[in-house]
Amino acid sequence: MGSLAVIAVDGIPEVVPGADLADLISDAAPDLRDHDCLVVTQKVVSKAEGRLVEIDPDDPLSHKPLVEQESVRILRRRGELIISQTSHGFVCANAGIDLSNVGRGQAALLPIDSDRSARGIRDRLKARRGVDLAVIVSDTFGRPWRRGVTDVAIGCAGIGAIADLRGTQDALGRELQVTEVAIVDEIAAAADLVMGKSTNTAVAIVRGLNPDWFRRGNVVGEIVRDPAEDLFR
Amino acid sequence: MGSLAVIAVDGIPEVVPGADLADLISDAAPDLRDHDCLVVTQKVVSKAEGRLVEIDPDDPLSHKPLVEQESVRILRRRGELIISQTSHGFVCANAGIDLSNVGRGQAALLPIDSDRSARGIRDRLKARRGVDLAVIVSDTFGRPWRRGVTDVAIGCAGIGAIADLRGTQDALGRELQVTEVAIVDEIAAAADLVMGKSTNTAVAIVRGLNPDWFRRGNVVGEIVRDPAEDLFR
Repeated sequence: MGSLAVIAVDGIPEVVPGADLADLISDAAPDLRDHDCLVVTQKVVSKAEGRLVEIDPDDPLSHKPLVEQESVRILRRRGELIISQTSHGFVCANAGIDLSNVGRGQAALLPIDSDRSARGIRDRLKARRGVDLAVIVSDTFGRPWRRGVTDVAIGCAGIGAIADLRGTQDALGRELQVTEVAIVDEIAAAADLVMGKSTNTAVAIVRGLNPDWFRRGNVVGEIVRDPAEDLFR
Repeated sequence: MGSLAVIAVDGIPEVVPGADLADLISDAAPDLRDHDCLVVTQKVVSKAEGRLVEIDPDDPLSHKPLVEQESVRILRRRGELIISQTSHGFVCANAGIDLSNVGRGQAALLPIDSDRSARGIRDRLKARRGVDLAVIVSDTFGRPWRRGVTDVAIGCAGIGAIADLRGTQDALGRELQVTEVAIVDEIAAAADLVMGKSTNTAVAIVRGLNPDWFRRGNVVGEIVRDPAEDLFR
């Protein structure tokens, strides 16, 4: 496996509804290669797809009805915090609705189908640049039991969400117990380390990943745990 | 922030109880620099610290009494799976006890104090090589709601577990909502991408991190969520 590079893509202008993200990325990233994995933050995807909603800028709770509307099930409430399940099946705070890095008086909803968003960017970059790469749409989620947020994948294309190591042997020739690694979440986390939270960097390239991981894949089908199998819903 | 590199450190021999991990890493990694972050998997730390226990190799459930012993609280049981809280405060499957990549008839327990383990490696590398780097001890945990495992930090030294962005402004001049990023978990995840699960690579270097993140830090104090504040215990 050797090594990999995580490279911030700077110089992408402010994204407006209707913008072609693949074109903006292509202009900002002159060096794109087969088997690169692009990580694009949810914020710019939501903006490009027009998933912005007007809210009252003087009411700090004005986005709360949106949270209820974007949730299919509320898991927990404490004070103003709502942990809920979105239509995609993601469990996160406030249904993934975000007020930072959008205009005052606006809230950004999650993309309707974040796997499709990733596929669209991948397909357009392939058409425009002739490169066969993977795309991950990332978002910032909290976790139970552990403080601090981390970036995870909410959509992907051109890469399997899970690398299945079932049946392979460990270094001592014994069958591995741990089988399925959520590589798209690990890649999203790696990308966040170069993005920073207070700059406009919304895209990163992860280069040097295992070529075997590049295949058809999606987050909602592979990563979202069946509620019936979940011990914590 | 620009870019960062994640580099596998190969050539570390099989680790035996009593081994000096810092010496083994130093021999295998001729190029270590200030502000590098070393990620060392729990498995080799547990082996070096002698946290191996004999189990009956012919009984697939023989490690289960160990799980009970290493747990301070059981959160959920389903079939053979136990989700519990360890003495460190981590919530994970089977109290972090692992049967892969250890000898047949052995189980590896978590280090007693994984932050101290990280500090020990950091201090010895500083003494031996004169480098001021960070060390993270990583382990592989499952998550609720999302399929697949990811690597997270169970100990750290020389780096803050959380980067606190509270009060800084986003690119549009508005105060950020998302405040605390679990950077050590993101770094552990990034390192896992070069390790592979079926090779002996147990150490990686992450180079190019934000220099501001290098300070005194620890995982148990910064990352473990107070059970009283936790919505899912």
